[in-house]
This record gives sequence, C-alpha cells and structure tokens, in this order.
Amino acid sequence: MIVLTDIEIAQSCEMKPIWEIADTAGIPEEYVEYYGKYKAKLNLDILKKEDRDNRLILVTAMTPTPAGEGKTTTTIGLADGLRRLGKSANVALREPSLGPVFGIKGGAAGGGWAQVVPMEDINLHFTGDMHAIGAANNLLSALIDNHIYHGNSLNIDPRRITWKRCVDMNDRQLRFVTDGLGGRVNGVPREDGYDITVASEVMAILCLAESIRDLKDRLSRIIIGYTFDEKPVTVGDLKAQGAMTALLKDAIKPNLVQTLEGTPAFVHGGPFANIAHGCNSVLATKVARKLSEYTITEAGFGADLGAEKFLDIKCRYADIKPDAVVIVATIRALKMHGGVDKKNLAPENLEALEKGLPNLLRHVDNIKNVYKLPSVVAINRFPTDTEAEIDMVIRRCKELGVNTVLSNVWADGGVGGVDLADEVIRLCDEESNEDFSYLYDLDEPVEKKIRAICKRVYRASHVAFTKNAEKEIQRLTSMGYGGLPICIAKTQYSFSDEAHLIGAPEGFVIHVQNVRLSAGAGFIVALTGAIMTMPGLPKSPAAERIDVNDDGVISGLF
Amino acid sequence: MIVLTDIEIAQSCEMKPIWEIADTAGIPEEYVEYYGKYKAKLNLDILKKEDRDNRLILVTAMTPTPAGEGKTTTTIGLADGLRRLGKSANVALREPSLGPVFGIKGGAAGGGWAQVVPMEDINLHFTGDMHAIGAANNLLSALIDNHIYHGNSLNIDPRRITWKRCVDMNDRQLRFVTDGLGGRVNGVPREDGYDITVASEVMAILCLAESIRDLKDRLSRIIIGYTFDEKPVTVGDLKAQGAMTALLKDAIKPNLVQTLEGTPAFVHGGPFANIAHGCNSVLATKVARKLSEYTITEAGFGADLGAEKFLDIKCRYADIKPDAVVIVATIRALKMHGGVDKKNLAPENLEALEKGLPNLLRHVDNIKNVYKLPSVVAINRFPTDTEAEIDMVIRRCKELGVNTVLSNVWADGGVGGVDLADEVIRLCDEESNEDFSYLYDLDEPVEKKIRAICKRVYRASHVAFTKNAEKEIQRLTSMGYGGLPICIAKTQYSFSDEAHLIGAPEGFVIHVQNVRLSAGAGFIVALTGAIMTMPGLPKSPAAERIDVNDDGVISGLF
Repeated sequence: MIVLTDIEIAQSCEMKPIWEIADTAGIPEEYVEYYGKYKAKLNLDILKKEDRDNRLILVTAMTPTPAGEGKTTTTIGLADGLRRLGKSANVALREPSLGPVFGIKGGAAGGGWAQVVPMEDINLHFTGDMHAIGAANNLLSALIDNHIYHGNSLNIDPRRITWKRCVDMNDRQLRFVTDGLGGRVNGVPREDGYDITVASEVMAILCLAESIRDLKDRLSRIIIGYTFDEKPVTVGDLKAQGAMTALLKDAIKPNLVQTLEGTPAFVHGGPFANIAHGCNSVLATKVARKLSEYTITEAGFGADLGAEKFLDIKCRYADIKPDAVVIVATIRALKMHGGVDKKNLAPENLEALEKGLPNLLRHVDNIKNVYKLPSVVAINRFPTDTEAEIDMVIRRCKELGVNTVLSNVWADGGVGGVDLADEVIRLCDEESNEDFSYLYDLDEPVEKKIRAICKRVYRASHVAFTKNAEKEIQRLTSMGYGGLPICIAKTQYSFSDEAHLIGAPEGFVIHVQNVRLSAGAGFIVALTGAIMTMPGLPKSPAAERIDVNDDGVISGLF
Repeated sequence: MIVLTDIEIAQSCEMKPIWEIADTAGIPEEYVEYYGKYKAKLNLDILKKEDRDNRLILVTAMTPTPAGEGKTTTTIGLADGLRRLGKSANVALREPSLGPVFGIKGGAAGGGWAQVVPMEDINLHFTGDMHAIGAANNLLSALIDNHIYHGNSLNIDPRRITWKRCVDMNDRQLRFVTDGLGGRVNGVPREDGYDITVASEVMAILCLAESIRDLKDRLSRIIIGYTFDEKPVTVGDLKAQGAMTALLKDAIKPNLVQTLEGTPAFVHGGPFANIAHGCNSVLATKVARKLSEYTITEAGFGADLGAEKFLDIKCRYADIKPDAVVIVATIRALKMHGGVDKKNLAPENLEALEKGLPNLLRHVDNIKNVYKLPSVVAINRFPTDTEAEIDMVIRRCKELGVNTVLSNVWADGGVGGVDLADEVIRLCDEESNEDFSYLYDLDEPVEKKIRAICKRVYRASHVAFTKNAEKEIQRLTSMGYGGLPICIAKTQYSFSDEAHLIGAPEGFVIHVQNVRLSAGAGFIVALTGAIMTMPGLPKSPAAERIDVNDDGVISGLF
C-alpha cells in the first residue's frame, strides 16, 4: 500500500474556486474579498445580515500525546460527514503559525483525507494575518523604545517593560537579547526578548474582538510595562492603538477556505493554548454560525485546557455556548496514559489501553457533569490501530456508560465521519445544553477562580501559590483587574502541572508560580511552570527538505 | 482654497474593480490572482504569452531634497497623460516599505492627483511581499543560529556572520543587539543586528530574479558569513534556498493596481537605493512591457545613483534598455542647490534658482552624453512655485539647449502630464537609444569599475580606497567575484560623498571606505560612508495620529 503524505493528498484533490465555496456557504458575493483563487476574507458586515445562530459543536480531546490526537482532522471530517448526511455544515478552525512548519511539527490543517486546502498557503503566509499581528506587535515595541529614546515623558522603567517583540519563526536565539546597543544614537540599552507571533497578546485580542471598535479598545488597554513609580503604562498612553488597528483592519476579517470535500472552512486566528485561550477567533465562529445548520469548532490541547478556556473565556466573552461536545480519543494516547513510552505506541497493547482509560473518563466526566453539556467520544482511528484494540475500547466505554463512536476520517474523509455526524445530530436534537454554566463567576476572588479550575477540572487536591503569585494577585486586584477570567498556563500532557503524571492522577498539587495580566485580551494568566513562548528548531529542520519546482509547486512541506 | 491630503484625494476617487484594470491592461483572466477587490498578482506564465517588448521610459531626477522631487508622481502622471493622448501605457513602480509610514515620510504611492491606489493597502501590507521577504530573511537567520547551536558542522565563526535579521519597521533599538543570551538551551551568544526589510539582500534578489529557478539559484549563492578558517558559507551550504523560495513563491509575482485615472500599475519590489540598486522588480518591468505601448518606470534617488544602477545593474541583468529618460527637476531642489536652506525653499528666489541649475545640467549631460539616451527634463510643478520661477527655469534651460517640459501632474493628474507625454512620444519616435552602452565592462578590475562611476558620473577628481577596501576588493576578486557589477552606497544629496556639497561640485574625492559582497543579488557594494539600513522614528511619530473608524476606514496616514 502506498501511503500518500498530507501534501500529496492535498495536491491531488481538485479545489473548487472560492466563489463556489462562498456560494455553498450562502455568502452573498458583496461580502467576499478574494485572496487568490482559493482563499477569501469576509467583510464583517455579513454579521448584520442574519439573525439566526445555528448549532455549535466543540471538538476537544483527551490529554494528548506530543503528536496530537487529531482534533482538527476530526473537526473537518465531522463537518464533511454532516454534509454527506444532507446537513449544511462548516468548520471554524485556528490558523497555523509559520514557525513550526520549518521545524518538526509540520502543518496544522488537518491530515489524511480530512484537510483544509490550499494547505501550502494556509501553512505559509495564508492571507497575511500572522504578519499583520507581528507588525502591530513590533510597531508597539518600536514606539515604546522610541518614546524612551526621545525623553521618556511617561517615565517608563526600561527594566520593567513586559511587552516583548515577536517573529513568526521558531528561533531560540531571540528568547533573550539585549538591544539598544551601539551608543547614544542607537537607542537605550535594555534586556528584551522575542515570542513567536502566536504568543503575542495581539493575537489573543484579535481572537476575542467582536468588531474594529472592540479591537481598538482592547489594544488600548494592553499594559506594556510600568513606570519608575510602579504605575501601569498602556498602549492608550502611547497613542499606539489607532496605528495598530490600522495594521489589523484586514486581519480581523475571517478567512474562508475549503475542506478537501468542499465544505466551507473559516480558518482564523490561533493564539497559544497555554498563555492564551487557544481558540479561533470569535468573529469566525460567529460568522460561521450565521451560515450553516452546524458549525464545528475546536479548542487547543486536551479538554482540561482547551475546552475549559473555550467555555470560560471565549464563550463567556462572546455570549455563546456549544450544543454538543466531541471528545477525541486515540488508541495511541490511551496506551500512553496506560504507561507505554511514546516511542512504542504502535504495537498492540490491550492492557495499557485499559489502564489509560481513566484519563479519557475524567475529561468525559468534566464535560458531562461539570459543564453539563451533551457529549460523545470520537475514537479517531489511526492506521496502526488493531481491530482488537478498537473493539476493546468501544466495548469498555459502552460498559462504563460512555457514549462512543468510531471515526475514520483520516483514511476515509467525510464517509469516515458519518457515524460521528449521526450521533452529533442526535445529541443536538435529543439532549440539551440548557443546564450549562461557567465554572466560576467573574466576581469571585482571583485565587478562588484559579482553585475552581484546578480542583473541579484538573482534580488537584490542593493549589499552592508562591509568595510572588500571591503578591501579584493582590496587586492586580488592587489595580482593578480582579474581575477578569482566568487563563491557566500548564503542561498539556497531564491534568497536573507535571508532564510525567499521565493518566488520571490524584492527590497532586497545582503550583501557581506567578500570575500575569493580559489586560487587553482580558484575562489573568496563572503560570504553573516555565512556559515556552519561543520554540527552537530541531537539529535537522524540515526547512532543509522543503523545495519549490520551476512552476512554483512546493514539496517536502510535510 | 482647501488643499486635500493625498489620502483624502485617494479616498475620494472611485476605484475600478481590478478585473477591469486587468482587462484594460490586456491581461487574460487566467493569469490574474485577486487580492481583494482592488489588488491582484499576476501569474508569471504571462511572460510566455507575448513576444513583443514595448517602449520603456525611465523616470529619474536631479539631486533631490529630503522631501523628494516627485519621481513616482511624475511616472504616474506621465502614463496617465499618455493614455489621455490615446496611447496604451502603464507604470512599473517600487512598492513602499511599511516602516516609514509610521515615521515622518508617509506613503510612497505618488501624490496629489497622480497616485496609485488603494493607497492605504499599498502602504500597509499590500499583498504581503515585504512580510514574505522578512520571513525568508529571518528563516535564514534562524537556520544559521540553529546550525551553530546543534554542533556547527560547517564551522561558522559566530563573530563573522554578515547576515542580519530584519523587520519592516523603523526601529533604531534593533540596530545593534546581542542575542542567544539566557544560557545553554537558549542559543549561542553573539553580536547581531537588524536591518529594515527593504535593505535585505533577499529584496534585491527578488527584484533581479527572472524566474522561480533564478530566484532559488540567487538565494543559494548568498554568503551569510565565514568559517573560522575564512571560507565563505552560503545559503546553499545551509540547504535553506528551497524553504526560502517556498516563502517567496507568491512574492515573486508582480502586483497589479491602478492609478487614480485607471492606468494599470505594476507595483512590485523596492530595494534600498544605496546598498542595493533601488528599482522595482525586473519581472514587473518585463510583464508591463508585454502589455502596453509605453511602460514608465522609475529608479531611486537622483540620476547619479538611481539611473546609473538602473542602467548598469538592472538593465544589464535583464538585457533591456530604456527608449527615453525623463529627468525630474523641481524649483525647490534647484533653489536648494543654489544655496537656500531647506527650511526656506518656498519663497521666490530667482537668483538661487539660477545658481542651482548646474546640478540639473550635470545629470542631463550624463544621460545624454555618457549613456547616450534621449532625454527630457520635466519640471514637476509644486503649489509654492511662482510663475516667474517657472518661466525663468524654462527659459534658461532652452538657452542652454536642454529639452524641458513643465509637468503639472500633482495638481491636474494626467491632464497635467500631456505635454510631457507628447515630448516622450516624440523622443521615442524621432530619437534613438542605439548608441547606449553600459558605463563599464564587467571584466574590468573592481577598482576600475568603481572609478568609472565616480569619475564619469559623479565627476570626482579622484577616488581614494581605504586599506580595508583595497584588501577586501582583493579578497573578493580572488574568491571569483571580481566580475560582478558595482553598486555604490553614497549620500543621495550630493554628487560627492558629502551631503553638504550641493550643486555640481568639482575637485572632490570619493572615499571608498569598504566594499561588501551581495553574492546572491549579484553585485559588489562600494560603501562611501556610514549607510543607515535601519531608520528610527521621530519624536512625534505619524503612528500616533493614524486611526481607523468603526467601518475600517483609515485616517491620518499622511
């Protein structure tokens, strides 16, 4: 059997012109702004067109392996499956960062026969959103240093600038730098650093903004650092919000592409899922819901991080809630949580599989009993899975009362997602999301909100705050930011804050090392460990194998 | 009288949809890739379509004032004027950098009633070319440091890396940095620095490349630094050319927009005019020439720098030559060269005007007698010019045998360019470019080529090379690069290398401080002083006054 790579599959499918996809999606011509033949942006006025808000399905996952469990693939295959059942459906997805493409990870546009295309474009510059975000971020940086250079009338303490520069590249060399060197005419020397663009607060803001006005307001609230007398300095103080918004005026418009089966795909925004909330833009989700009976969307990492933030941050700000939740599980991930080393996940291992189930069950319990949302587990089939493994998981889930469906979208596209689609339709028709509530109220104290997440979702026995964290919480609260939602930055590989605690650990302590304010995005980040916001490249980066032929066709992307 | 700003004029004109412009330009639908409603990129296959190469007009200028003399404005108005005379005409222009927009300079898309539009887009992200160039540049940087970090098998000396990072922003803080700080896992500490993106060699390469293949070949020849044993390290050694080309596969395609009068405008590429050659892309020029009877293009700075590089670098590589040359002069610039301070250029001053003429005459003499090309001086009328000033210049030029036409395109658009258009048609019809020859032969020694430019174009009495420059020339020659053309980096404000030597100085010495190899672009840069490749922002940057209203309409751009 010849197994095609994702890019080979993508290039083998004939795409429809994007106006045809827009037509399928029910988007009138006047709202469509073309970016080449297969990409478009949508004018935000389309939100005023239609009052209907259709069904919203969230795809989340059990605690993932480093390779990921296929949330994007499942999201795409589910929508394709719904369309095969005669329903109108679309997807709202995160857009990938350029940086990882040149490292190991490869693209982030689904996989196998459940992809969004044109995958090369989506994974490279797409419609320029990342670059616009990077430019807005770095314009702010330039304005900060320029302000200090020209007399510093705002009294900014260069040692307390929290705003970092960014680049959409995996470049460890830039994590810690000193800039402003070279003498008096070349700036003021200070310690500085770079994040990858997706980690910029500008990205989180773009993904939560409801309009140009809201975008500008949020940008102006960003705190870039503190004065020598400890007062916060905002983007508004620097008068930078107008120019930053000008740079983002097109980036805020949702992008339209298609799945391999011609399903409309809104791929827009992709903030980090640890120091930010990890979901595609509110605007893409809202536009998508206006247009089809079913909108399928995803959230980063496992349900402890991704779904929690989707529900408690994104849904709260956007005033939406999902009608049903799909929890993606894989045989590989179950085996890993059963104790198998990640290098040996391929061979059949029923015992490990059984041992790994509690991880999945805890996520299911959270969605069902904490958030009170209708849910289904989708077993995302991989080529290495054996029949015995699949049978066993489905049987055990049934015994345990877990609603489970096998999904085979990687190999079969929409056809492999029909069973899952059937179950999702049933959940929406027969079960209710009426009892849904947020995990915490915004007016609770910051510590209490953090404890709610750690204890009720992660199931920690205790939450320990460092002295620094306590002091910072007090400070932020006294500054008037205590009423913001919480965004926990934690390893995605465990319910706990230690990656090696696999499965469904108990009796663990979550250590809140510090908290950080994202005043523009509108959340308080609780840091439970060192969070990497600038990845590095591996010894043999993918970049060395990427090529373009004389006709402009790319190979080796992944 | 209410004087509208450029952005107000631009926003007051109704643009035609870009497919209509493509149709005007004679571009079949299948070659057009839309970027929104008013921008497009053209598939390179269009070059194969047509064998005709039409008339090419170069617009250059006398030695400019800091505000610029309106080459772009004249280029646009001339094409609009030709179209008013019933000729088919288009323009090929440089695309502006994002950085200066937020400083003082404002946009670079013409002015008054001779602009290219949509000006906000062209001046902000446009079709993403700058960002693509920045990403390719910075991917290379990341790969260099990653190579060193993972064992440095190429033996790169971190102290001798000549490749710099870049950002499309005026950010003096980044001129000199140290990166790779923060300990063992965060890179290898070294001195580094940033250029603004337009100064990247990638930009120069993109503008000289004839095809995807040629682009990749040129990229692979870039020298990024030297090994501990003094051997050059190339992009090819790092296997980075494929991934860099992948990032540039769309950026290499010429952009199509329109003038305010609906003339097709190919706005593509914009390298620095000092350390690089300062012209729009060869591909845009070639595509444009296939499509209209007349293509009007421009080159950076005054004719000593811009036209010289256009002719000796761009034309040589692309195997083209202009049919006629327009030399833009202004009353303001003539007065400045007559000794008036740049703050007092508005009041009438006939004496200074007369004294400033020799600067213009030397440029005219160069085009006419050194390069042997048909030429006309276009007096680009400014609102502050008095009738007496205009009359005097035209009369004196006539007396001196200089072919001169008044151009009023800033105030009147194409109507103000009709006289110039008439004269350009006459030059093409009645005069010949057959005697044109390059200033030097490539196989002459490097010093001799540099001397040819300095003595014959600048009219220096002597050229002095520092010991370093001599040594470096010897080294580059022994490495096999002696046969490349020369790109002189010099102040644009004087024929000499000292900005204060206005007019037509004589008896001066050009000091070649050092030379630098752009092996990918394919030229040797001779540095005659400190050249700024990363501008800074002013005390009150334009960014503070830029805004966007709730409908996404930008104000305050300039």
